[in-house]
Amino acid sequence: MFPKVHAGMEMAMERNRDCTKTMGNWEKHIPVFAQKMKTYPGLLWKTMWKVGHDDPRRVIHAFKVGLSLTLVSLLYLMEPLFKGIGQDAIWAVMTVVVVSEFTAGATLCKGLNRGFGTLLAGSLAFIFEYIATESGRVFRAVFIGAAVFLVGSAATYLRFFPYIKKNYDYGVVIFLLTFNLITVSSYRVDDVLKIAHDRFFTIAIGCGVCLLMSLLIFPNWSGEELHNSTVLKLEGLAKSIEACVNEYFVATDIKDTENQSSEDPIYEGYEAVLDSKSKDEALAQYASWEPRHSRCHLFPWQRYVKLGGVLRHFGYTVVALHGCLRTEIRTPQSARTLFKDPCNRLAGEISKVLMELANSIRNHRHCSPEILSDHLHEALQDLNTAIKSQPRLFLGSNKNQATNMLALAAAQASQKHEKAPGVSLSSVKTDSSALMEWKSRRASDSKEAERKVLRPQLSKIAMTSLEFSEALPFAAFASLLVEMVAKLDNVIEEVEGLGRAACYKEYQPCDEVVVTCDRKKINVSQHHVQPDGAD
Amino acid sequence: MFPKVHAGMEMAMERNRDCTKTMGNWEKHIPVFAQKMKTYPGLLWKTMWKVGHDDPRRVIHAFKVGLSLTLVSLLYLMEPLFKGIGQDAIWAVMTVVVVSEFTAGATLCKGLNRGFGTLLAGSLAFIFEYIATESGRVFRAVFIGAAVFLVGSAATYLRFFPYIKKNYDYGVVIFLLTFNLITVSSYRVDDVLKIAHDRFFTIAIGCGVCLLMSLLIFPNWSGEELHNSTVLKLEGLAKSIEACVNEYFVATDIKDTENQSSEDPIYEGYEAVLDSKSKDEALAQYASWEPRHSRCHLFPWQRYVKLGGVLRHFGYTVVALHGCLRTEIRTPQSARTLFKDPCNRLAGEISKVLMELANSIRNHRHCSPEILSDHLHEALQDLNTAIKSQPRLFLGSNKNQATNMLALAAAQASQKHEKAPGVSLSSVKTDSSALMEWKSRRASDSKEAERKVLRPQLSKIAMTSLEFSEALPFAAFASLLVEMVAKLDNVIEEVEGLGRAACYKEYQPCDEVVVTCDRKKINVSQHHVQPDGAD
Repeated sequence: MFPKVHAGMEMAMERNRDCTKTMGNWEKHIPVFAQKMKTYPGLLWKTMWKVGHDDPRRVIHAFKVGLSLTLVSLLYLMEPLFKGIGQDAIWAVMTVVVVSEFTAGATLCKGLNRGFGTLLAGSLAFIFEYIATESGRVFRAVFIGAAVFLVGSAATYLRFFPYIKKNYDYGVVIFLLTFNLITVSSYRVDDVLKIAHDRFFTIAIGCGVCLLMSLLIFPNWSGEELHNSTVLKLEGLAKSIEACVNEYFVATDIKDTENQSSEDPIYEGYEAVLDSKSKDEALAQYASWEPRHSRCHLFPWQRYVKLGGVLRHFGYTVVALHGCLRTEIRTPQSARTLFKDPCNRLAGEISKVLMELANSIRNHRHCSPEILSDHLHEALQDLNTAIKSQPRLFLGSNKNQATNMLALAAAQASQKHEKAPGVSLSSVKTDSSALMEWKSRRASDSKEAERKVLRPQLSKIAMTSLEFSEALPFAAFASLLVEMVAKLDNVIEEVEGLGRAACYKEYQPCDEVVVTCDRKKINVSQHHVQPDGAD
Repeated sequence: MFPKVHAGMEMAMERNRDCTKTMGNWEKHIPVFAQKMKTYPGLLWKTMWKVGHDDPRRVIHAFKVGLSLTLVSLLYLMEPLFKGIGQDAIWAVMTVVVVSEFTAGATLCKGLNRGFGTLLAGSLAFIFEYIATESGRVFRAVFIGAAVFLVGSAATYLRFFPYIKKNYDYGVVIFLLTFNLITVSSYRVDDVLKIAHDRFFTIAIGCGVCLLMSLLIFPNWSGEELHNSTVLKLEGLAKSIEACVNEYFVATDIKDTENQSSEDPIYEGYEAVLDSKSKDEALAQYASWEPRHSRCHLFPWQRYVKLGGVLRHFGYTVVALHGCLRTEIRTPQSARTLFKDPCNRLAGEISKVLMELANSIRNHRHCSPEILSDHLHEALQDLNTAIKSQPRLFLGSNKNQATNMLALAAAQASQKHEKAPGVSLSSVKTDSSALMEWKSRRASDSKEAERKVLRPQLSKIAMTSLEFSEALPFAAFASLLVEMVAKLDNVIEEVEGLGRAACYKEYQPCDEVVVTCDRKKINVSQHHVQPDGAD
């Protein structure tokens, strides 16, 4: 549930682990290892601070668990309480350890699953006990063994059912656990019903303490987290799109952008959207156990998951748009500049809509009926006019080629091709020397992050040797922008649906429409200081 | 780990659950409920069969767990064994229930975590016990309470560290559990060290039974599962691309494709790739605990995760390509037909490369050095030639407009615009009537799947009222295909890296290159029976 990774700590530990693994020749490694050990306390302290700083609720949660454990230990430690409950008090301690989860929903889910599982198992075990009680000792042992085998297999198989797996997995485990404990114990203990009763009682106390702690003292609601993460996703997408379009019309050298890729604002914006599926589903699942504290009868958690899906598909288009910044075949800067203003304007309008949707969700109100504003339509018209006013561009214009190094290289490559038509093209990486080159490259940079997949492509030569119409990449860029406007409809529709399901309040025309993405625009321009017409 | 969802069962149960929730007016619902109950046994049987049929290893696993439980119960049920171990035998039963997991890696991970957690907690508890043992009864209770609070808070906070969370989460829980059990018990029990020793012994027996069962009897390896899922992902992508390009040049009516979207082969092909992150990481995590049974020193599980990331980014391009089939602004069929052959050929070559990569991984051998074949390059050249031979198309050609209904509608819409410049455009859905329309639509189809996001866009009118150059959408399509060739390099590079890390055997030129995607091509053509030139 906390996918944020403190990369420094993690990688250092990972490295260290690799190092421990290859300890076969450990003599070499001892100095390295000692060096590593020296840096550990500082690293540990940093990680500790960072974990708490990223989300201070974690510190509170840790203290809450400590407090619950101490409270429940009192059952055992204080004489009057212990007299009432006895040795079984230890089960309350166990329950608290296992049930305490970060959010209220997760704790409720686990606690109720544990309670129901225990209750059901107790009832079933009592029936089995009743059947076996009259028979001889050997028959009883066989009967218990058979019951354990059958119930164990059946319960395990049940856990593969998607519906059970999603909602009651933990409950089935606890059912199996309790059933086996009671049934097996019943062979040697006479009053097994008493045991079951006492144990259930203490487990209920443990669950009760956990639930009180998680519901009443600084509760963390899964539903709230889902709500907030949805708002952040919308804002992240808005920022990504603006930054992407800004960079498209500024960046001329790929190396420039490559260097700062470790904190690429574009990637950061849509990163959270892409891999959100499992996190969203878990949060929604826990939220479904939480008491409804909205005006509505039901908290529409399933709506949030659906909206997450729609945003993911919207995000794929943003990834494709981002890909346009990193391809080798590019429309020359001079040609791109012609479309700078309309594209920037269109991107700005799209961001504005996304920000308005984010604000609508954040403030639990319906979004403005003018959300698909005339401005958006005008921006589309502008882009259209700009494209139609440059028909020459879509002809693979010969004038531009003279000033374009890539095209020159391409022309040379194709001449080569004509000279030796039977031989494998040198411009295509097909031979084993190319593989060798890769191998040497791979050895040096094998530790890079996933983000690397967006770096410039290897088949540079293969691609630029084709004299594709130079307008093609820009056409793709523009088409993706237009496509994005079309997909906005899906997003708006989902947000509207969510608003209805969650009984959002009506939109008030006087509500302020806050647009906060201007800052990012400035940031990007600061990174690339060169003027637009430099090409 | 088993994301396959038996949709029928799930949705029926979901519906039923909704129904139970609104039972406030239950009198109405009783007949409906009775009806539902009647269909349950059949549904249950179907789900049971389907769960086993999808993956027969599940049935085996269920029996394995049943058998382990019976074996470990014998410790309690058989007189001679019970004499040696005593009441603590029950802890072995508990351990088996909790530790048994589907794959060997997961069982090892849990079992070892449980073992180490218990051992560490036992040692720490012994130290605390040693400190507290000499003092008075009240001080001892306070000391134990404080220790429980501090260790509980610290351990809970530790679980938020990303590295701990990823690898040792369960171990920390068990540590906390055991520490509390021993420390709290020590207040009333004298020989706590003996208890700890006996308990550790029985837990070790339980873990041992589980490990033997999962490692020796029909083991399911996480590493193998990761390997197979990677092969399937590559094949799925290959099929998607071919099907996508085929459909682009065949489908003319969106409604046609809409109807069969419930089993859209394109979506099915890339679906598994997109949301694979958490599943891949879990499998790799478990695989890292498994004994290495390859020729290599290390099973390169982290490489598979990286390859998964690269494939995901490749998949985003396929999604964008799929999006080209569903947009409203389309290049007319007559124009598209001109590029049919080169596009089909290029897609075929891309699929061939992906299939070769899949075969390379499946057979644990390096991929053919001719993987980036001349054919691929020739296909690129062909497409280039075809595009350059149609410059007229990129001019927003007026001839085509006459035969294009969308363009006619667009012309009308723009005339309207000129007549009433001050009024909000009727072609743009800005007013509340549009929202009303959405609302009524939403009410009817609120139960649709995520796939719905690919349905035709609502802003049809808004988009087609723009006279974008008709070549724009095709340019985007072609550009995405070319982009895909560029991204292929990343995939090949990662597969090569994986091959080196996993010590794949060298490529033998006589190895058969199996290309199995022709079938899909036929399927798609069968779905759309109309001839290509029908437009």
